Amino acid sequence: MLTKLYAALDAAYPEMVEIRRHLHMHPEPSFHETETARYILSYYEKLGVDVKGNVGGNGVVATIQGAKPGKTVALRADFDALPIQDQKESAPYRSTVDGVMHACGHDGHTATLLVLGKTLFDMRDELEGTYVLIHQHAEELVPGGAKSMIRAGVLNGVDAIFGTHLWSMTPFGRIDTRVGPLMAAADSFTLKVQGRGGHGASPHETVDAVVIGAQMVSNLQTLVSRRVDPLESAVLSIGSFVAQNPFNIIADQAVLSGTVRTFKEDVRSLMETEMERVINGTSLANNSDYEFTYKRGYSAVMNHENETLFVKDIAATIPGVTEVYDCPPQMGGEDFAYYLEEIPGSFFFTGAMPDGDAYPHHHPKFDFKEEAMLIAAKTLGSAAIHFNKE
Amino acid sequence: MLTKLYAALDAAYPEMVEIRRHLHMHPEPSFHETETARYILSYYEKLGVDVKGNVGGNGVVATIQGAKPGKTVALRADFDALPIQDQKESAPYRSTVDGVMHACGHDGHTATLLVLGKTLFDMRDELEGTYVLIHQHAEELVPGGAKSMIRAGVLNGVDAIFGTHLWSMTPFGRIDTRVGPLMAAADSFTLKVQGRGGHGASPHETVDAVVIGAQMVSNLQTLVSRRVDPLESAVLSIGSFVAQNPFNIIADQAVLSGTVRTFKEDVRSLMETEMERVINGTSLANNSDYEFTYKRGYSAVMNHENETLFVKDIAATIPGVTEVYDCPPQMGGEDFAYYLEEIPGSFFFTGAMPDGDAYPHHHPKFDFKEEAMLIAAKTLGSAAIHFNKE
Amino acid sequence: MLTKLYAALDAAYPEMVEIRRHLHMHPEPSFHETETARYILSYYEKLGVDVKGNVGGNGVVATIQGAKPGKTVALRADFDALPIQDQKESAPYRSTVDGVMHACGHDGHTATLLVLGKTLFDMRDELEGTYVLIHQHAEELVPGGAKSMIRAGVLNGVDAIFGTHLWSMTPFGRIDTRVGPLMAAADSFTLKVQGRGGHGASPHETVDAVVIGAQMVSNLQTLVSRRVDPLESAVLSIGSFVAQNPFNIIADQAVLSGTVRTFKEDVRSLMETEMERVINGTSLANNSDYEFTYKRGYSAVMNHENETLFVKDIAATIPGVTEVYDCPPQMGGEDFAYYLEEIPGSFFFTGAMPDGDAYPHHHPKFDFKEEAMLIAAKTLGSAAIHFNKE
Amino acid sequence: MLTKLYAALDAAYPEMVEIRRHLHMHPEPSFHETETARYILSYYEKLGVDVKGNVGGNGVVATIQGAKPGKTVALRADFDALPIQDQKESAPYRSTVDGVMHACGHDGHTATLLVLGKTLFDMRDELEGTYVLIHQHAEELVPGGAKSMIRAGVLNGVDAIFGTHLWSMTPFGRIDTRVGPLMAAADSFTLKVQGRGGHGASPHETVDAVVIGAQMVSNLQTLVSRRVDPLESAVLSIGSFVAQNPFNIIADQAVLSGTVRTFKEDVRSLMETEMERVINGTSLANNSDYEFTYKRGYSAVMNHENETLFVKDIAATIPGVTEVYDCPPQMGGEDFAYYLEEIPGSFFFTGAMPDGDAYPHHHPKFDFKEEAMLIAAKTLGSAAIHFNKE
Repeated sequence: MLTKLYAALDAAYPEMVEIRRHLHMHPEPSFHETETARYILSYYEKLGVDVKGNVGGNGVVATIQGAKPGKTVALRADFDALPIQDQKESAPYRSTVDGVMHACGHDGHTATLLVLGKTLFDMRDELEGTYVLIHQHAEELVPGGAKSMIRAGVLNGVDAIFGTHLWSMTPFGRIDTRVGPLMAAADSFTLKVQGRGGHGASPHETVDAVVIGAQMVSNLQTLVSRRVDPLESAVLSIGSFVAQNPFNIIADQAVLSGTVRTFKEDVRSLMETEMERVINGTSLANNSDYEFTYKRGYSAVMNHENETLFVKDIAATIPGVTEVYDCPPQMGGEDFAYYLEEIPGSFFFTGAMPDGDAYPHHHPKFDFKEEAMLIAAKTLGSAAIHFNKE
Repeated sequence: MLTKLYAALDAAYPEMVEIRRHLHMHPEPSFHETETARYILSYYEKLGVDVKGNVGGNGVVATIQGAKPGKTVALRADFDALPIQDQKESAPYRSTVDGVMHACGHDGHTATLLVLGKTLFDMRDELEGTYVLIHQHAEELVPGGAKSMIRAGVLNGVDAIFGTHLWSMTPFGRIDTRVGPLMAAADSFTLKVQGRGGHGASPHETVDAVVIGAQMVSNLQTLVSRRVDPLESAVLSIGSFVAQNPFNIIADQAVLSGTVRTFKEDVRSLMETEMERVINGTSLANNSDYEFTYKRGYSAVMNHENETLFVKDIAATIPGVTEVYDCPPQMGGEDFAYYLEEIPGSFFFTGAMPDGDAYPHHHPKFDFKEEAMLIAAKTLGSAAIHFNKE
Repeated sequence: MLTKLYAALDAAYPEMVEIRRHLHMHPEPSFHETETARYILSYYEKLGVDVKGNVGGNGVVATIQGAKPGKTVALRADFDALPIQDQKESAPYRSTVDGVMHACGHDGHTATLLVLGKTLFDMRDELEGTYVLIHQHAEELVPGGAKSMIRAGVLNGVDAIFGTHLWSMTPFGRIDTRVGPLMAAADSFTLKVQGRGGHGASPHETVDAVVIGAQMVSNLQTLVSRRVDPLESAVLSIGSFVAQNPFNIIADQAVLSGTVRTFKEDVRSLMETEMERVINGTSLANNSDYEFTYKRGYSAVMNHENETLFVKDIAATIPGVTEVYDCPPQMGGEDFAYYLEEIPGSFFFTGAMPDGDAYPHHHPKFDFKEEAMLIAAKTLGSAAIHFNKE
Repeated sequence: MLTKLYAALDAAYPEMVEIRRHLHMHPEPSFHETETARYILSYYEKLGVDVKGNVGGNGVVATIQGAKPGKTVALRADFDALPIQDQKESAPYRSTVDGVMHACGHDGHTATLLVLGKTLFDMRDELEGTYVLIHQHAEELVPGGAKSMIRAGVLNGVDAIFGTHLWSMTPFGRIDTRVGPLMAAADSFTLKVQGRGGHGASPHETVDAVVIGAQMVSNLQTLVSRRVDPLESAVLSIGSFVAQNPFNIIADQAVLSGTVRTFKEDVRSLMETEMERVINGTSLANNSDYEFTYKRGYSAVMNHENETLFVKDIAATIPGVTEVYDCPPQMGGEDFAYYLEEIPGSFFFTGAMPDGDAYPHHHPKFDFKEEAMLIAAKTLGSAAIHFNKE
């Protein structure tokens, strides 16, 4: 049956590319992906697949009933894009939306799952069990779409869930995963430094928010370098620092924001506590005020042992897969974490490094090798079908 | 004759306030003050005063010919506003333009000179000499309006020039000025820090422009604290630090800008050279790139001795002036400097501290005591008329 | 036979304590431990044990020949102290030497091995194989004593080596070890910042080495926080910052020194390269000079798999051992690494947390629970004897 | 009479050089200058001059009574040296005392006053009034010798006081002085940063005093760059940063010290308050403790108007003086300030720039042009003698 699945997917590969490129040209940011949701819904409706929109937000869920009894397996693909300006130089499928871009491969995830869904639907007379295809919105922005889709019931009656991420920094042909912690807890924070503005020529009558913000950025480096156990992992990145003023005005305010990544709860708490300590002390040193908001984001993705070993075994048999790699944990967050807090399952990375220059995820020139979608579809499809053979 | 001038100005004070408030509600940023220019032009035209618009840009110049022969004296008022959001709480004359505000009192300068011009025009049969009323655009933004108005000939045949700045931090009733350096040279700079962006979870694959920009801000503090002779004055203010990104993206770029104020040429050159040294070294330390542009702004305002002593003597006789103060030099820049590089003259501050809270110039809640306009008008008017008595 | 060993050790415990306390009161810093060496030598000589001094420096090696043929096993104990002022409040065995202290437990290691040696010597008629007792000098100071003792031939003919560290932060009764990386590579560096001194009142005529050194300390924090992969371990600690001057002199020079700890060669190289980059750039930014010397210290301690599993099995049977713990790797360096680069072997920590306050190693109040020496002796002794049963 | 004075001084110049070089080779640090005091005392005793030692400490005071009645004039020279290692390369009169050096020219001041004293003594039959020669100890170290010598009565009955400083950075032949503030108030401070020490490999178990001290040094730069009015003068120099540890120990403590120089009381208070604010906030940010001691040093030297104009007039007539320069105020402190708080007087700088390389005061290679002593002697002598002619 897998041979048949692979052949059908191979035949549908051009469609997969076409869908991916269409989505790539029409990206929508997290929680605003209404057109993309409509596109997915309409795709299934045209095929006659049982599908439901507006699931926990913009989420879409299709269900394919195999002719024979069996377990229920969910497959998940996310479909939101990022507020990044596409800077690819030559791709004909560049984003047509100013300031929005599929810079993380979710277009590919969606194309993969849609075509896999169509293929499974075509094969439904031979299949055992039930296949729940979760098209999730808003993976990039906390609180994410997973939680609300779960609350809307998408996991009801589901026995296991599988998902993948196309990965531009992993060689094509390789599948990466691991038992246990696969991806970090991803928190975010905002820090508003409140000084007292004034004329650039009279610093002594002001409290300079740019100078204070700069001290905080430097002082916060010591959290990772000095306060976290060097054997543990932690990241503190301040992505934004905004104090926009005419050149001759001293800043009243600076607004900083960023992310903290950790694997362990005690390290996560330490980072939160110590950030506030550094910010508070630096503010006192400068006679300024501040507002600091630390927002816990997605939990760490913890892969279940049985399902992960199962995926690794399957993956090794997929045509085109040259290596199944027991990868180190990743610092990036994923709200797939929440599905795994509810039911057994596993998440893996599908190597999608392009032939030319490879850019990391969220880079303005990010792209991936499209053939990787075929490997992703075959792996997810095999896992889903085989799960009923276990 | 001065008694008559004072009485006429007193009578016209309500109009002065009306004009000021009208302008306050309709501010225009530097080099875009076309409606304000039209307003000034039309004011003089309605009176029948000889007036010319579009002088060296949006500048307007009115000329009043006294009936008797004499010297030619110029008076100057600037009329541009600032890109600041008005945050006054209750004033009925708050700015109606989003993000633009008369936060430096140029509205008052203009109202003062318009009503003084009208008064002088009414008294023209008794006056000696010629009165050139320079309504200058774009004082707040280098290269400023003064240079181009001078190139357009506004100082041709002029024997001396006087100007004032309403000053919210100086007590009402006081006139501040000094012989020699009154206001600093005002330079500006832009610094673009070019790192390499990426995902917030993977700092080691990036060159973090926020961290580098913060180091530069801190390291640049040592120019004033360590490299400038402590007996000299220098200010380096970084008003803007902008690296705007989604919270989980590490910044590709940070754009900083600010101002440098100095009184002496060697200190000015030192600041420029050492800024580049600090920026270059810090960039090398971080494996990043940068673009640094240092733009020399207005020269220092150097008051001429005779004209300044003359103004101080006159000022002491003006009703309402309670003190003439030999003030220390100011760090703020003024393109009045260029008039004084061409012809003799003097610039002074008219105390305009409000009765309640006083905010510094360029503050979002800046305001001034309107009665100060009357003192400014009387002082400028007396100086102009008396100059022919010298 | 082990029962006999344990009983003999139990009986000799008072002597062990006596020796340890004697050594504790008479500490000698690395490479100057001549009296300690003499003490060890004389202990064995009095017993009639075959012993040799001045082995690769101050090292001492005793050899005990079992009556029956067998393998040759080495046991190692280090005996140097640290240049730290003893600040223990009440211990009767406080250091009698100003500024020198056994703040790492090497006194205990030596007492343990001496008494174990005596015991093995007493049992020599029953023993198989040969026992090489390596009393190593200078563990605390690179290049360490291990390398020169190896060059002097102490491992010739030796089949395996075992060693332990009494550990004040590990609960009494626990043995900690792991297969593979147990302790980090420990490098050291010296940084001389060369400015230009002068009078504290005239900073502009100087290049302030304290300000530059401070910038370097802060900027170097970003190596661990930004440049090292967050999934890898690295430590950069600057233990010394010395610029000693009269209060009104600006420092000509600051001398900094510290340590870098890593487990992997590529991280180690990255740290070395990036340190120089940060130092060089910061120096350029400040128009100063510098001398930077990076000295590679001990390699990482890599425990051999068979010998480590063997020790763990033995340890679990020792009376008083309540837990054998598969510990995470430690950042501290150990020149036991070099023995393990030559022959198979294993290193482990013997829990020695005192009953009251526990201070970390190298702390001025460091102390350990003396009963832990007995556990260490039993574990090392069992391992050595049993190794011939394998 | 002045002609005679000049001729006598010219004749005694070789002795002046000899004395100076002797003192240069035998420097003594502040408050320990007993041999130097004995030398001075003995010089006067041999001549038969009325002299007293142990005045307010190591101070020595000689009194010369002119034959005719008149006013009493004091002349002051300081004689202590600095804890600096002499690094002059070739001078035959290099310091013979390790770590102590006349790096500020007090040896020259003493030679000047001794020979001038001898000359005045020789001329006593022709002189009017009384000449009090104050040889002051301990100028370099707060609380200085001036206060205690004043308390001991050296100014009793004195009408005016004059003093000079040989100045290596002022061209030979020039005399610099000014009415009003001539030298700054010189305060000192000590800052002990108390962290928690530990092993260099375990930063998370420590509070790193070097990192905290470095942050403080950097953060304190903003006091001068941001908090002091740019039109005022202030200097904050941290001359010492000492945290001395073995390379692999994280510092328990760092001890910093330095100086603050200001001219105005409000700026002085601001510096003290804001230093504590920065230190306290930075300490809180790092969970550390601190002890901060701010010690007010010498007041600003405020030259009296009449006496200063008097000195300037006299100086212009001295052979060898090519220029009398109205210099800007100096940031360096001087306890001559206290004499001027009691009685009228004036302090001036005697240009003593050497022919080759000139090093600033307190530099390890400091030296001065010896002929300047002759100019200093003539100027002080003329001023003293002429003061009775006024």
